[in-house]
Amino acid sequence: MTAPFQSRFVALARQRSPLCVGIDPSRESLAEWGVADDADGLRLFCGRLVEASAALVAAVKPQVAFFERFGPEGLDILRRTVDRAREYGTLVILDAKRGDIASTATAYGEAFLGRDSAFGGDAMTVSAYLGFGSLDPILDVARAASAGVFVVVRSSNPEGTEVQSARLADGRSVAEYVADRVTSHNAGHEADGLGPIGAVVGATLGDETASLVARLPNALLLVPGIGAQGATVGDVRAHFGAHFPRVIPAISRGISRAGPDLAALRRRIERYVAEIRDAD
Amino acid sequence: MTAPFQSRFVALARQRSPLCVGIDPSRESLAEWGVADDADGLRLFCGRLVEASAALVAAVKPQVAFFERFGPEGLDILRRTVDRAREYGTLVILDAKRGDIASTATAYGEAFLGRDSAFGGDAMTVSAYLGFGSLDPILDVARAASAGVFVVVRSSNPEGTEVQSARLADGRSVAEYVADRVTSHNAGHEADGLGPIGAVVGATLGDETASLVARLPNALLLVPGIGAQGATVGDVRAHFGAHFPRVIPAISRGISRAGPDLAALRRRIERYVAEIRDAD
Repeated sequence: MTAPFQSRFVALARQRSPLCVGIDPSRESLAEWGVADDADGLRLFCGRLVEASAALVAAVKPQVAFFERFGPEGLDILRRTVDRAREYGTLVILDAKRGDIASTATAYGEAFLGRDSAFGGDAMTVSAYLGFGSLDPILDVARAASAGVFVVVRSSNPEGTEVQSARLADGRSVAEYVADRVTSHNAGHEADGLGPIGAVVGATLGDETASLVARLPNALLLVPGIGAQGATVGDVRAHFGAHFPRVIPAISRGISRAGPDLAALRRRIERYVAEIRDAD
Repeated sequence: MTAPFQSRFVALARQRSPLCVGIDPSRESLAEWGVADDADGLRLFCGRLVEASAALVAAVKPQVAFFERFGPEGLDILRRTVDRAREYGTLVILDAKRGDIASTATAYGEAFLGRDSAFGGDAMTVSAYLGFGSLDPILDVARAASAGVFVVVRSSNPEGTEVQSARLADGRSVAEYVADRVTSHNAGHEADGLGPIGAVVGATLGDETASLVARLPNALLLVPGIGAQGATVGDVRAHFGAHFPRVIPAISRGISRAGPDLAALRRRIERYVAEIRDAD
């Protein structure tokens, strides 16, 4: 019986670091490395980042879109990247932001969640435009597979505000409503004080962060937007305050930019690991 | 130079039918056909539906989740399904409900939109939890590829109401805001009175439909939820009223349930084609 995702993450974060290395093989990132924008370049980029992360961090987060742009071959490389990370004992959060209803939602769970699933992820990100309840079939698959799910609660891009700050009839914002649903769902399924559903919360939300994450007391907080997108680990520490121990800082280009040299990538990761440890 | 998606759709809908045959190879649908829940079953299901649709309808709509659950091999079958549909001159709307920001959004466009893209779709569905503006990079790719994009405006699942009916500061609901953004974006890029961005609007919204689709005067309206999900073509005709000529009725299990026999599938499709023609 596999331990729940959140327990596996916490144990590994303690042993290594909670840092999550984002694997974003965009056209720009491959160009920065001087490798071709094709399957070979993709393979090299992913292999190198997974190897550099080994034994240093708890998780890697491949962004599925960047594999999809290479078609079925790209998705084969995604699957191999997951397997490779696993060999190093690193957890894999598949950043897919999927969301749909009924049997379609079930299919997304079956595609991405659990070691026996098609892509073998330990966790995935999902999106709730179709309502939090629409995600139930994904959460069911996650529970059965001891996998994690990260629901986008509040993104840091400015365009996200219109939808995420809209108000429900009871006065809560959409982001607050999604956060509350995460918390109540987790309440029934806690291990070590944390439930299987985490929240994606942007790094650059400023003062809004404190009240929002206070509504998420039993959730891991996946925080992208650190590094190349402008926020520092210190900013995240300041904004997340007492909740910082639940933060999974996700850094993509801030790390990949140190490549393609393996030793340089390792040094960059170690620098971030130290920054996160010192901030805690 | 390829004509814009909306023009190609309208021409083909006039010549054949606006009916869009949904290709939803869920576990249940494969079981109904008595085929294995594996790559062979998937291949047979998709091939048969594409063949049955040939020359009868304007478009097919594969639900990407049901291919992802078979991993890279499933996505290879998706790619081949797109190619097969194209041989019959049928347009392909990839139902993916993707949504993300910046270079990730660009990657989704590059993966799914246009004949030269990785999956070769003529159009795709997207979701706007990260704000309508986050979709701009996808819309840019679509324009360059003469492809279409369908933004989920209002889904018919009951759980969708909380997010989609939340109110912006100016009083509009999230669904109305997304609809208005579709309309204003389309205004700059019309062909035959229609823009490249369509809207996904559920079939079973009842009275809410009329006011919502009135805000979408220059958009094709992709309407799932007909057939197995409870709404009839007559219901859609009644609710969409004068806007019915812009409706793309999408029917999945209501058609696939007639299979796997090819002739039976054709008869079922012809019955729906006649219903839609009579309603218009």
